[in-house]
Amino acid sequence: MIPGPIGVFDSGVGGLTVLRALRSHMPQADFVYLGDTARLPYGTKSPDTVRRYALQAAEALRSRHVRALVVACNTASGFALDALSEHWPDVPVVGVVEPGAAAVCRRSPTGNIAVIGTESTIRGGAYQAAIARLRPGAKVRVRACSVFVALAEEGWFDTPAAAAVAQAYLDDWLQGEDPPDSLVLGCTHFPVLSDLIRRIAGDELLLVDSASTTAEVLAERLAPAGASHAGAGSLRFLATDGAERFARVGSRFLGQSIDPADVEIVDL
Amino acid sequence: MIPGPIGVFDSGVGGLTVLRALRSHMPQADFVYLGDTARLPYGTKSPDTVRRYALQAAEALRSRHVRALVVACNTASGFALDALSEHWPDVPVVGVVEPGAAAVCRRSPTGNIAVIGTESTIRGGAYQAAIARLRPGAKVRVRACSVFVALAEEGWFDTPAAAAVAQAYLDDWLQGEDPPDSLVLGCTHFPVLSDLIRRIAGDELLLVDSASTTAEVLAERLAPAGASHAGAGSLRFLATDGAERFARVGSRFLGQSIDPADVEIVDL
Repeated sequence: MIPGPIGVFDSGVGGLTVLRALRSHMPQADFVYLGDTARLPYGTKSPDTVRRYALQAAEALRSRHVRALVVACNTASGFALDALSEHWPDVPVVGVVEPGAAAVCRRSPTGNIAVIGTESTIRGGAYQAAIARLRPGAKVRVRACSVFVALAEEGWFDTPAAAAVAQAYLDDWLQGEDPPDSLVLGCTHFPVLSDLIRRIAGDELLLVDSASTTAEVLAERLAPAGASHAGAGSLRFLATDGAERFARVGSRFLGQSIDPADVEIVDL
Repeated sequence: MIPGPIGVFDSGVGGLTVLRALRSHMPQADFVYLGDTARLPYGTKSPDTVRRYALQAAEALRSRHVRALVVACNTASGFALDALSEHWPDVPVVGVVEPGAAAVCRRSPTGNIAVIGTESTIRGGAYQAAIARLRPGAKVRVRACSVFVALAEEGWFDTPAAAAVAQAYLDDWLQGEDPPDSLVLGCTHFPVLSDLIRRIAGDELLLVDSASTTAEVLAERLAPAGASHAGAGSLRFLATDGAERFARVGSRFLGQSIDPADVEIVDL
């Protein structure tokens, strides 16, 4: 019996950076990715709204017989993971916040940690809570960096304008008296800005994103079923709006070309 | 008999720049403003989706007995104005694209016109079509400037980062061989960036936004009813999500403080 695909969802195309890591980690597995592009971004919306949207997106994936669900969106991971796990007790549900928090707590040399994300992720406090639990005594500072999302979607990964925005967000931390030793990229859009942030921050700063850690956590969760890597390596895309834009912008996040004809529009 | 309020709607807070101009033009009129914040932005969504959302928003305002509807969103004006007018034959419906296009066609010295807006507004082509009709022979160039929306919402109206973004979008036009004589700010978020754009572009460039022209058009449409300015000058806010954020970010666009307690959350 062939197990169902792994469902991955995000408010839009940012979660494709997570899908990329999942595919790299589990190349044989089948994936179906849902981007809720008609209602993006989640990052400025209230917890209740994000939770309602996430449950609807998960239901659409469930109807595709997925054997696991990856919430590849920091905002939805922070607000909706418990609700999703309650609704889906029979299916592993993995978010990106816990794996990212675990990774930085394990790897930060001194526990002087900075987290950047969308407004809702930062205000929701999920990273702050997870880090405090996993590494008591860590110093955590946070900042919402909404303009980074727009830069990433525009494809301005390392331009003078992108550098100016990054400096506006990060310079006081980096040039301050007690700079962080680690920076968590707490939004799935941000990994495409890694090179830019690295160039501004220097080699000392540890950059942590959730993508590869999330892949490891998922593989562990699936291993007892004995089929964590089974499949044909297939990839399907669903979106709630704009196949052409999903393919065009998404290709940059996935790191490979997406054909608009391969993006199925669904109504949640 | 006291006439109903004037309904104004936008995907979020950007339309508050239009409301500001309307209030300045018609200080006695009552207004009810609806920001569809749960589903913003419209600017990256498809025409069908924007049309559906706009009709739902208009229906919510209709139930408040508005006597006119101002579509204070360039994307919705471009895609949904005809559908709204068909659904509401008994109520004046005014968008922001036609007034903005009319203003630049009237004021541009040579007809060398540039238009900036969201992705959907630019791809939808409503400005291009309106300018071509109103001033045949005009040279029109267009550009989607999505990052401007994020800058405006972040409150970075005139910072070094904002300047770098503006230069990235505009320098090739401004420094080119045949610079435009006029620039249409074809998104209701953009007027807050006027000073920055003016500083980069110099005094020669004519900046046109739709807000004050839209107010004039609305007053003309209401004049035959003999009550264009009647009312008590009241102001009510509706939003589909996030009263606190609406008040905080919206205050910058309206140019006066908004109390979160005055923002009623509605479900469309």
